[in-house]
Amino acid sequence: MRPENISMAGPGKRPQELSQAIAAGITINIESFHELETIAQLSEKTGVQAHITVRINPAFELKASGMKMGGGSKQFGIDEEQLPTVLKRIKVLNLDFKGFHIYSGSQNLSADAISEAQQKTIHLAITLAEHCPAPLKKLNIGGGYGIPYFPGDTALNIHQVGTALAESMAHFKTEQPQADVIIELGRYLVGEAGIYVCQIIDKKVSRGQIFLVADGGLHHHLAASGNFGQVIRKNYPIAIGNKMAVAEKEVVSIVGPLCTPLDILADKMELPVAEIGDFVVVYQSGAYGYTASPIQFLSQPRCVEILV
Amino acid sequence: MRPENISMAGPGKRPQELSQAIAAGITINIESFHELETIAQLSEKTGVQAHITVRINPAFELKASGMKMGGGSKQFGIDEEQLPTVLKRIKVLNLDFKGFHIYSGSQNLSADAISEAQQKTIHLAITLAEHCPAPLKKLNIGGGYGIPYFPGDTALNIHQVGTALAESMAHFKTEQPQADVIIELGRYLVGEAGIYVCQIIDKKVSRGQIFLVADGGLHHHLAASGNFGQVIRKNYPIAIGNKMAVAEKEVVSIVGPLCTPLDILADKMELPVAEIGDFVVVYQSGAYGYTASPIQFLSQPRCVEILV
Repeated sequence: MRPENISMAGPGKRPQELSQAIAAGITINIESFHELETIAQLSEKTGVQAHITVRINPAFELKASGMKMGGGSKQFGIDEEQLPTVLKRIKVLNLDFKGFHIYSGSQNLSADAISEAQQKTIHLAITLAEHCPAPLKKLNIGGGYGIPYFPGDTALNIHQVGTALAESMAHFKTEQPQADVIIELGRYLVGEAGIYVCQIIDKKVSRGQIFLVADGGLHHHLAASGNFGQVIRKNYPIAIGNKMAVAEKEVVSIVGPLCTPLDILADKMELPVAEIGDFVVVYQSGAYGYTASPIQFLSQPRCVEILV
Repeated sequence: MRPENISMAGPGKRPQELSQAIAAGITINIESFHELETIAQLSEKTGVQAHITVRINPAFELKASGMKMGGGSKQFGIDEEQLPTVLKRIKVLNLDFKGFHIYSGSQNLSADAISEAQQKTIHLAITLAEHCPAPLKKLNIGGGYGIPYFPGDTALNIHQVGTALAESMAHFKTEQPQADVIIELGRYLVGEAGIYVCQIIDKKVSRGQIFLVADGGLHHHLAASGNFGQVIRKNYPIAIGNKMAVAEKEVVSIVGPLCTPLDILADKMELPVAEIGDFVVVYQSGAYGYTASPIQFLSQPRCVEILV
């Protein structure tokens, strides 16, 4: 991959990191006026012209989204209303302007909502293009493609999203034929590809409720414990890995080994009857799993990452 | 400290860890019938008599507690109703029974609630002592002593707790004069002793709201971001460390560098006017801070722990 096809993103970038990115020829998503000026100065100082895109906080938001990252007041990007001013400034700086990054939200299961946001994103890019110092070479329309985690979630209708996007793209290509359009699909690509496995090391009954105690928990998988952005805790999809065909079931809670009631993987789920030594499998763990967890907490052993 | 004065706790202990604890002469808090049998077997196999206490899940709970760890169905300890059966079993096993561990909750700011729980805890221990294979040598009455985090929180009246505890202790000492009484004060001792410091690396305005972007955030201090057991996010106490005496104030949100809206340290707080380069100080960070945070998340640099 060419360095300029690698993007550096995030609302807080340290000057040292920016220098390294400029030197390496990586494209930097600019998130503020201050960042723009810093990059221009570093670019001039080092004699290397920086590749930049501008991250825009659109006026619209991605509806029905698990995590909103655009619309209203946000720490991400520059408000769309401020874009003409930013672009005017970019024109007089010695920077390689490549285009826009518009990321309005994450973890969305509604094809309608995603398509609507994509249409608005492309429309916004076309509208702002007239203020640009050069034709758009890149348009990053963000992600938002969700995966089903909880009871009642249904998989995203990816065909519907694709059909609508093809139409928007056809329109966009007539306006900005030279631009690459980029989609960010991190979770959608890898979230379902990963499972988290731990082993049952105790089974006990407390006042009628069955607890399976596992040797792993929130320190390996914070999101499955419900402590990573969930307002109301819901159970991740879980199975007893070595008892997939067992018919006899019971309602159990699965907890981790930590001395905190937050360390819970399943709250009163109906699962095949499990015993000590059996394996707990947590699905949808390929994104926001291990690296998003407090691995040092209470000095428990870390888990092993295996690529199959 | 003598090894048997060190305790091993937690609902999930692996056999290997139990073997090591037995060999080292550490006291093990037993949390289930299964654990009791495992320890007895390991003890017999290795020829080293294990020191044990029984962790009890009391029928009462610690009222008004930030985190309940006793009462109802819990993964912690053995239900108080099951104690006569457990103690009868311990009598016939070759184990050094030392006493009880009764931990009913955490992070409590009500002296009345703590004192009530302590009285009930001591009463429960005295009642169950008649079933014990030996006089109590240890009674761990847990913790629960909270520290003020949020607006409206007031510090625990420690003198009131002390006065009531002295009375309970006098009574307990007439019943079990040989027993040590243990209190767990982790957070209360170290929580207020630690601060988390990060630096402002950007300042921006989005649709009227001021954002200070810091070079640290939830990956260093998950609890301050509101993602560690809080149902409704509240701001930790925060200051601009190098502007303590500055009178001019403004309402700001302080966010971290990560590409997620979860990465927030302060939501619309009134603070002295701060600029890039200033230092954000988060108080009450000596417990459940760095080690309880997802330090690997998004490959950000780690923070440094300094003992002053």
